[in-house]
Amino acid sequence: MSEKTIFSKIIRREIPADIVYEDDNCLAFRDIQPQAPTHILIIPKEVVAGVQHATPDHGPLLGHLLLKASQIAAEQGLAAAGYRLVINAGDDGGQTVAHLHVHLLGGRPMQWPPG
Amino acid sequence: MSEKTIFSKIIRREIPADIVYEDDNCLAFRDIQPQAPTHILIIPKEVVAGVQHATPDHGPLLGHLLLKASQIAAEQGLAAAGYRLVINAGDDGGQTVAHLHVHLLGGRPMQWPPG
Repeated sequence: MSEKTIFSKIIRREIPADIVYEDDNCLAFRDIQPQAPTHILIIPKEVVAGVQHATPDHGPLLGHLLLKASQIAAEQGLAAAGYRLVINAGDDGGQTVAHLHVHLLGGRPMQWPPG
Repeated sequence: MSEKTIFSKIIRREIPADIVYEDDNCLAFRDIQPQAPTHILIIPKEVVAGVQHATPDHGPLLGHLLLKASQIAAEQGLAAAGYRLVINAGDDGGQTVAHLHVHLLGGRPMQWPPG
């Protein structure tokens, strides 16, 4: 099951994506339905179905994802103006792919409430 | 400067808050302007001005915040229906307090875009 999401196919380069960062533990690429001038997804290479399924063993990986999101935001020139990070969990959260992903949105003022 | 945010005062119990979780590294309490039936903030006790100011040394702390957000969501009965985690960085992100905080929102379907 875990091999079937579109994100696993992107990690394996079976379908194209506009990749902006990669290391041994994560991959970052542009959302194909951007909701802001900059909209990038940061995902772990290890399949975790969502943050709601994370176990204490995933702590370092979760920290890595946020650090890299912050680093990528800086590389994209968003550090000074600011940006928003969003993690959707399950149906009420609006999660559409069962592979944990951090949304990085910036390039415009984000509104409140956050959806 | 770091001692002056409202969150530092909440940590020191100088002003009241509806606290739902606490450990040595973080504190969680209900947002006083909730944007969903459940709206909780998870903050580190260590003052980090925002995720845009996090350094690699903060990786474990960031992972801890997300793990605890997920755990608190489960305790609040949100795990099955789902929820959204949001981190605002700087002005465009909508950050209003210069102390890193994770918003946990649930109890209703969250909309897209996330603000």
